Amino acid sequence: MPPPTGKITLGRYMWERLHQVGINTIFGVPGDFNLQFLDYIFHVDGLNWAGNQNELNAAYAADGYARVKGVPGCLVTTHGVGELSALNGIAGAMSEQVKIIHVVGQTTRGMQKHHMMIHHSIGDKPDHQQYNRASVGLRYAAAELWDVKTAPKEIDRVIRECFIKSGPVYIFLPLDLSAEEVDASLLDTPIDVHPHVDEKAQEEAVRAITSAISEAQQPTILVDALVQRFGAEQETRQVVKKLNVPFFSANMGKGIVDETEETYVGVWNGEVSSPGVKEVAKAADLVITLGYIPADTNSAAFSRKLEVERTIHVNPFDVVVKGKTYPNISIKPLLAALFEALPSTPKHQISKPQLPPLRTPLDQDATHLTQSFLWPQIEAFIRPADIIVSETGTSNFGLCDITFPMNIRFITQIYYGSIGFATAATLGVEVARREQEQEMKQPGRTILFTGDGSMALTIQEIGTMIKAGIKPILFVINNEGYTIERLIWGAKQPYNDIVPTNYKHLLPLYHHPSPETSFHRATTKEELTAVLAKPELQNPTHLQLVELVMDKLDTSWKLGTLLAWRSEEHKEYLTREGFVDTYGGWGLDGKAGGDVKWS
Amino acid sequence: MPPPTGKITLGRYMWERLHQVGINTIFGVPGDFNLQFLDYIFHVDGLNWAGNQNELNAAYAADGYARVKGVPGCLVTTHGVGELSALNGIAGAMSEQVKIIHVVGQTTRGMQKHHMMIHHSIGDKPDHQQYNRASVGLRYAAAELWDVKTAPKEIDRVIRECFIKSGPVYIFLPLDLSAEEVDASLLDTPIDVHPHVDEKAQEEAVRAITSAISEAQQPTILVDALVQRFGAEQETRQVVKKLNVPFFSANMGKGIVDETEETYVGVWNGEVSSPGVKEVAKAADLVITLGYIPADTNSAAFSRKLEVERTIHVNPFDVVVKGKTYPNISIKPLLAALFEALPSTPKHQISKPQLPPLRTPLDQDATHLTQSFLWPQIEAFIRPADIIVSETGTSNFGLCDITFPMNIRFITQIYYGSIGFATAATLGVEVARREQEQEMKQPGRTILFTGDGSMALTIQEIGTMIKAGIKPILFVINNEGYTIERLIWGAKQPYNDIVPTNYKHLLPLYHHPSPETSFHRATTKEELTAVLAKPELQNPTHLQLVELVMDKLDTSWKLGTLLAWRSEEHKEYLTREGFVDTYGGWGLDGKAGGDVKWS
Repeated sequence: MPPPTGKITLGRYMWERLHQVGINTIFGVPGDFNLQFLDYIFHVDGLNWAGNQNELNAAYAADGYARVKGVPGCLVTTHGVGELSALNGIAGAMSEQVKIIHVVGQTTRGMQKHHMMIHHSIGDKPDHQQYNRASVGLRYAAAELWDVKTAPKEIDRVIRECFIKSGPVYIFLPLDLSAEEVDASLLDTPIDVHPHVDEKAQEEAVRAITSAISEAQQPTILVDALVQRFGAEQETRQVVKKLNVPFFSANMGKGIVDETEETYVGVWNGEVSSPGVKEVAKAADLVITLGYIPADTNSAAFSRKLEVERTIHVNPFDVVVKGKTYPNISIKPLLAALFEALPSTPKHQISKPQLPPLRTPLDQDATHLTQSFLWPQIEAFIRPADIIVSETGTSNFGLCDITFPMNIRFITQIYYGSIGFATAATLGVEVARREQEQEMKQPGRTILFTGDGSMALTIQEIGTMIKAGIKPILFVINNEGYTIERLIWGAKQPYNDIVPTNYKHLLPLYHHPSPETSFHRATTKEELTAVLAKPELQNPTHLQLVELVMDKLDTSWKLGTLLAWRSEEHKEYLTREGFVDTYGGWGLDGKAGGDVKWS
Repeated sequence: MPPPTGKITLGRYMWERLHQVGINTIFGVPGDFNLQFLDYIFHVDGLNWAGNQNELNAAYAADGYARVKGVPGCLVTTHGVGELSALNGIAGAMSEQVKIIHVVGQTTRGMQKHHMMIHHSIGDKPDHQQYNRASVGLRYAAAELWDVKTAPKEIDRVIRECFIKSGPVYIFLPLDLSAEEVDASLLDTPIDVHPHVDEKAQEEAVRAITSAISEAQQPTILVDALVQRFGAEQETRQVVKKLNVPFFSANMGKGIVDETEETYVGVWNGEVSSPGVKEVAKAADLVITLGYIPADTNSAAFSRKLEVERTIHVNPFDVVVKGKTYPNISIKPLLAALFEALPSTPKHQISKPQLPPLRTPLDQDATHLTQSFLWPQIEAFIRPADIIVSETGTSNFGLCDITFPMNIRFITQIYYGSIGFATAATLGVEVARREQEQEMKQPGRTILFTGDGSMALTIQEIGTMIKAGIKPILFVINNEGYTIERLIWGAKQPYNDIVPTNYKHLLPLYHHPSPETSFHRATTKEELTAVLAKPELQNPTHLQLVELVMDKLDTSWKLGTLLAWRSEEHKEYLTREGFVDTYGGWGLDGKAGGDVKWS
C-alpha cells in the first residue's frame, strides 16, 4: 500500500494512528460489525492482524503485548457479544494500569437510531449503547463515534489518554462510519503521548524527596510495578543506582531493576519474605516506594507495614513525603528530575547485608518432583533477556522466591488475579518480544509458568501461538486442580478438582509441526533436570510444552507461610487436610525466621 | 445431610431455595470469595455441583440447562474476575429471556466498607461494587446482600423475579455473610413463582382475540420462542390444535409444537422460506403470533412483514390485536384461557396446502460431503425425544430447513448470536436432559451442530462433558474458518481463517474412555452415511464427536439466498469470490420461488 494521501477512510485513519504510536499487531476476533474495517488493517504498512480464539483471550494477549512493548495493546471485538466477552480482560488492565485500546465495531448509526432488533441486541426496542454502558467504570476514556467530522480528534484524544493514564480506553466505531473519509493530512501531526509537566510542582516534589533522603541515615527503595506501567523503568534504574543503598522489589516489581545489582536485597514481601530480608527492610529509617501497588497479594496480606513518618511514595500522579502530598506530578519526568537532583557522589555508604541461607527443605531426598526442588532449578534455567510470565497461583509464589539474572522482564497480574490470564497473555508477550528482538542485545525466550487449573480457562490460545509460529516455552504444573484454592479452603472438595487433561495431545490438536520433540513431561527430579537441559528448551525453534507432574497439595514455602500466617485456625485446617509441609516449620510451626507473629 | 431444621447458614438457605424451585445442578467456577459457601451445596439433598472450565462457559451451560428444564439455570462465580467473565453469557440470557440466577461470591463486608485493595479490585481505594454496576443493564433484578435479617427475603424476591420476567437475576453474597445463620423454618413457605393474573385484563384480551379470529376467513398461527421461555409450550400446543388451521414456526420457535402435526406448514422465514411456505402465509387474513421475537436473524432480515391490521401478537406481558394493546396479561395463563375460550368445534376448516418440492441441488452428484447432502441426512438421523443444539452460523440455516419428528426440542440462540454458545450450552442441555430422562416417554439424545470457528471459543467445555460422563453427540463442521463471515465479507481475508484443529486429539486430551470408537470423521457423502448408521451414534454410551469436513464456502441455500437478497452488490461480491452456488438460482440468479425481489 502507498503511504496515505488525499482522502482515506476513517477506519484506515484509526489504524494508521495506532501504528504511529508503536502498535504493530492487532488482536481480536472478527464479527459482523467489524469485518469491513478489519480490511483496512492490511492497508497500513507494518501493521499485522493476530486473530484470537475468543475475545477474552484477545484482551489478555493485548495486555501481555502492552506490558512488553510499553505502548498500548489493541484488540478489536464486535458489538455486544465480543466486547462483553473481553470485559474481564479489560478490567484486568484497569486494575493493573496496563495500556489497552479496545476497538468495538458497532451496529450502523441507522440501526442504532431506529432501535432495530439486530442480532446481539436486547429487547424489542433495543438500545445498542447498553454494552457501552456496561464498561463505563472499566476504562479511562471512550471515543463514542457518531460523526466523521469529529471522529479523528476523538480517536487521537483517547489514544493520548491511554498513554497518560495508563489503562484501557475504548473506540466505538459504527460499521458504516468506518468507511467514511477524512483527510490523510491529519496524520502528519503526531499524537502527543507525553504527559504535561508542571515544572513548579515537580521541583517542589523533588526538593521534598531529596531533603528527606539527606536527613535519613538509612534510606532504602522499594521498586514496584507502576514504574513499568508508566514507562519509567530506565529512570528507576538510574535513581536506584545513583542513590546506591540496599533496595528491594515488591512481588509485582520484580525484575524492573536488575537483581544482579550489588545493592539488591530481595523481594520484600512483608512477613513472608525470605530469611533476613524483612529485617534489613525494617532497619531502614526511610523507605522510598516507586510505583507502589499496596494490594493484599503484593504485600503478603498487608503485612508489609510502612510507617507514614518513614515513607516517601512516588506515585504515578503525586508524591507523598512523610504524609504530605505533592500533587500534579508525572512519575516518569519526576524520576528523571530526581535522578538529576541526587548528589553525584552518593551520600550513603551502606553495604548490602549478608542474608542467612534458606532452610533445607524436608522433602529434599524425595525423588518425585517437588516445588522445593523446582524453583531453584528454574532459577538456573532462566537466562538474561528472557521474559517470565507468571500465573497467579502456586507458580507466582515459587517465582517470587528466586533471583533473576540481569535483563529479565517479569509479567504477573497478581493484583487483578484473573486465572487464565498468563496463558493467553503469553501470546501477546511473545509477539511483542519477537517484534523487539532486533533491538535487544541478545535473543531471549518467553517462558510461561502456570497450573493446570489456570491453563484450562484459556487453553485454546495455545493454538493461536502454534498457528503464529511463535516459540514460547510453556510450563504447566499438573497437580490435579486448583491447588492454591485447596490450600485456602476445601482441600478435598470436588469443586477444587478440574477436568483431567492429557497434555500430550495438546500440541497435535493444534497441528504443531513437531509435537513429539516439543512436548516434555517430568514427574521426578531427575526427569526435570534432563528436560531443562534439552536443546529444545535451551534454544527453542518451536513452541515447547513442559508438563510438571506434582502433588495435589505441594506448594512453595511462601504460600504455605502466608496462609498459616493469615489464620491460626486455617493452619489447623491445612494440617488436618494433609497439607504438604515442605519446610517443616517455615509455614506451620510458628517458628519461621524473624519476628513473625502467628496469630 | 438431614433436612434443615433450627438454624442454618444463609448459604445453605440459598441453595435449599434454589433446589426447591427445581434446580438440581449448579454450574460455575470456584474462587476465593465463594469457596466456603460452595460447601453448603453438598448439604442439600439432590443438589449437585458441576464445575466448568471457565465462567463464560458456565453461563452458557446454565442457559442451556434452563432452556431444557424450564426452571432457572444457576451459576456461581467469584468477585470481579469471575462475574465479568460470565457477563456475555448473562447478556445472552437477557436478550433471549432465559432464566438464569447468577450467584456472585463477594469480598467480605469489612473489605468492602474499608475499600481494601483485595485482589480482583481496581485502584488504590477500590469500590468493590464496581463490577456489580457493570451488569445493571443486563439483569432483571439483583439481591445485593448486606444484612442477614433481610437476606432471605431478598433471595426469595429475585428467584421469583427470575421466573416472572424470565431472564437473568443476580445474588451478590459477601463471603462472611454466607456463614451467618437464619431460621430453617423460613424454607417451609415455598416461593411463589407464578405470575399474578389480572382476570379482568385477561378476559378482555381473550375476548379481543377470539372475536378477531371468528371474523377471519383464513387465520394462521406463528409459533415463536417466547412461549417456551415463559413455560407456555403446553398451552401453545393446545391452542394450535384446537384452532386447527395451518400454522408456522419462526426459526427460533422450531419444534415447540410438533412438526408432525397435520396442520404444520413449515418455518416461515419471510423471503427466505422454503418453496410455497411464504405464499401460504401471505394468503392468511389474520396472523396470530405467539411469543414472537421479530429480530433480523429470526425474520430473514425483517423480510417477514406483518401488517398491523391483520395481526395479533400474544406477547409475554401484553396482547396486541390489530394495533390495539391489551396490557397486564401473562402469556401462560392467557393462552390457557384462550384455549378454554375457543369453540370446541373448530370454526375454520382449512386443509394444509401442498408445497412444491425442493429443487434438486446442482452438486447432487458430488462425492465429497456437501451442505445440500448433509441436512436431509440429519433429518433422517433425528429421532423423537432428541434435543438439537444449533450454533449461530451455517448449522442454524441448515437445521431450519429440515422437518423434525415429534417431541424434539430445538436450542438456538440466534437473536443474541454469540458464537461458542452452543458447545458450552450442550453441557447444560445434556445435564438437564439426563435429569429429566426418567419423566420422558423415551430416552433421547442431545445432538450439537456447530462449526470449527464457533467451537474454538469454548472448546474446553468438552472436557467437562467427558469428566461428567454425559453422552451428547457433537457434530462439528470443519470448513477452515468462519464460513458465515466469509459469505458476509472478506471471503479470502486472513481474519476469517481460524486455528487449524486436528479433532482426533480432542477426546484423548480430556481422557475420554474410548477415544478411538467415539471419534468419527466424514469427508465424503458415503462416509457420512456410514457414520450416521453406527451404533455409537444411534445409541451413544459415551460422548461422540463427529468431524464433518466441508468446503470453505459451502453453505445451505437459505443462507446464500438471504445474503443475496440483502444486497445486489453483495451478490456480485459472493460470486466473484467463489461462493458455492449449490442451488444455482435459489440464491443468486434472482429467480427463487415466489415473488422475491432482488433489490
